[in-house]
Formats: sequence, structure tokens, C-alpha cells
Amino acid sequence: METETEDLSRRSIGARRNPASQEAILDAAEAVLREGGIAGFSIEAVARRARAGKPTIYRWWPNRTALMLDVYTRFKNARAFPDTGTLRGDLVAFLDNQLLGFWKDSLCGTVYRAVIAEAQSDAGAEEALQAYQADRKQRALVLVERAKARGEVSQDVDAALIIDLVVAYAWHQLLVGHVAQSMSKVEAVVDTVLLGTPGYRA
Amino acid sequence: METETEDLSRRSIGARRNPASQEAILDAAEAVLREGGIAGFSIEAVARRARAGKPTIYRWWPNRTALMLDVYTRFKNARAFPDTGTLRGDLVAFLDNQLLGFWKDSLCGTVYRAVIAEAQSDAGAEEALQAYQADRKQRALVLVERAKARGEVSQDVDAALIIDLVVAYAWHQLLVGHVAQSMSKVEAVVDTVLLGTPGYRA
Repeated sequence: METETEDLSRRSIGARRNPASQEAILDAAEAVLREGGIAGFSIEAVARRARAGKPTIYRWWPNRTALMLDVYTRFKNARAFPDTGTLRGDLVAFLDNQLLGFWKDSLCGTVYRAVIAEAQSDAGAEEALQAYQADRKQRALVLVERAKARGEVSQDVDAALIIDLVVAYAWHQLLVGHVAQSMSKVEAVVDTVLLGTPGYRA
Repeated sequence: METETEDLSRRSIGARRNPASQEAILDAAEAVLREGGIAGFSIEAVARRARAGKPTIYRWWPNRTALMLDVYTRFKNARAFPDTGTLRGDLVAFLDNQLLGFWKDSLCGTVYRAVIAEAQSDAGAEEALQAYQADRKQRALVLVERAKARGEVSQDVDAALIIDLVVAYAWHQLLVGHVAQSMSKVEAVVDTVLLGTPGYRA
């Protein structure tokens, strides 16, 4: 067993086709991002770092955006969706911890800005981002669905719209470089989405 | 007079330093965008089209993003902010006509996506976008301020937050390529911002 492990570690990653080597490439991609930032990030640099061939990487990731997005997703998945017992608590935690707070202090904000930027001019990058977004949003609906089950909101609430409003607010702050400033607005944003504009009467 | 006009038209744009030549460069920039799209847009191509020197263009626009943003702004300014008499009407018109509808059928959506993308990696582009955003949002506050004056909302409503939520929703749809699909959500978005989530009770 030990021999086999040693043997594997000496072989190039490209020779193996298993999840472990995908992980090894993601590790390499993360290291390249940490050391050289977005500017130094390329399939070539990751291949060199992982001691893998470029075709091996392209077999799993069609472009550098898709690979960046997977590094990003790995970090993201380390944070579970909140379950505080109330919709307000969940949405505040979602916006504060999963979105703005996730981007504020880490490389993740920079990486996600680059992913979004590349999706604006590259069809493959756009497809990768759309797939990621669709999956994340689908999973985030549980926050609203649980609130429906608790009777906190009407059964016919458009859960996707609620999640969209919160995610959109966060994206906008990220893309105009106002993540840090907007952290103090988290509760006000969630309260507006839940309660509307103070004193509004048609 | 006619002679002077003819004379001016024969001189290169770079020789004049007046608003008219800025307009001529913007006309050229617009023509380049219409004909070659984002991919063919460069200071060089605009200079050639305007029969101006590149330094003339750089005197007014530090980078291609700033120039694209000014072409975009010129279109945008042709649409006045709505004044329907109600906040709901104004926000629906703002989102429908000034944001999503403005981007849907025209080159403007493509140009703005490119501007936002470039602002993610270029400090000069980010600065240009931030200045544009700050100005637009400042001017959009009038929609909420008028509602305050009419007594439609509380005096202490955070007008910037209301505008931010609407603008952010629109940006997100633009950047994930969902502008057309989201047009049908305009009223629901505004109603959520004004009235909150249906049936919500804490």
C-alpha cells in the first residue's frame, strides 16, 4: 500500500484519471493563484505546477475560467448554507458570510471578479458561470422553502426572486469595489427585501 | 460661415480643442462599435475613423473603457429619468426602460458588459465606472426623494439603498445574460422592494 502511494506520487498527474488527480490540479491552481494572482494564472502555469500536461487539464476544464471557478467553488463549498431558524437570520448570514464576507478578506473576491469579467466576452466562460450560478441559486432556495414550511412567508412566494435580489446586491458591491463598505448594510438590505420600504403606502 | 465650416471639416480633429471635436470622436467611437463590435474597438481604430491623432483622444479619455463609457452615457442621457407621479411607477419605468430595456435590444448592453468586465482588472477602467455609477445613482435618488416629498415613504428611508437594490438586480441579469428573461419580473422586483416578501411575518 505504501509502495503504491509512493509510486503514484512519483508518476505525473496526467497518467492517472481519478478524482485524486483532479484534486491535485485544483491544489496546483490554488497555489498558482495565491502566489501570482489572477495575472499569473494560466492553464500553462497550473500544468507546470502540477507536473501535468496541458491536455490533461483541458480534458476536465475547457478554459482557465472554468478552472478558476472550480478553485473558487471548492472554497465556497467549505461554507455550509446557514440554518438559523428564521428567514431573516438565514438571509443575513447568507449575504454576510457566504457572499460579501466570503469575498472581503480572501482571494475569492478577486477570483470571482475575474470569472465574472471573463464571462462577459468568452462564451465558454459564460456557460461555466451560468451553470455555477444556476446550481448555487437552486441550492439557496432552501432558505426560502424552509421559511414557507415554517409559515414565515406565503406559500406562493417566488423564492428565486428573493434569492436573486440578495445575490444581485452582493454582486453589484463586488463589481464596483464596495464590498467592505456594504457589509454594514446587510441587515438593511434583508429587511427591505422582507418588509419593504419603510412607511411605503401606495 | 460656410467657408469656415468647410475648412473645419477638412482639418483633422486633433487640431481643434472644442466640444465639437469631442463629439466627433464620440461619433467615430460609436461608428466603430456599431461596425466592429467590442472586439474591434480600440483607441487606434477610433483615431483612424475620426482622422484624429491618438494623443488627441488620450487627452480626453485615459483608456478605451472610458471612451466606451462615454459613448454609452451619450445614449443613456437621451433617456430622461421617469416622473410618473408614483414611486412604484417611477421604479418600474427606471428598471424597465433605463436599465433592462435599455440593454436588451441595443448595442448598449454589450458595451456596458464590456465596461464592467474591464473595470475588474484595470484600475483606470474601475475609476471611470465608479465615477459614472456615483453620478447616475446620485441623480436617480430623485425618484425616492420625490416620493418622500409626496409622503409615499418615510422621511428617513435610505434612498441610496432602494436605488442600489434596483440597479443591482438589473446588473446581475445583464452579467449572467438574462436580460430578456428578467423583463417579465420588473413589477415583482419593484413590489418586493416596496412591499417586502408576500406574507412575511417575523
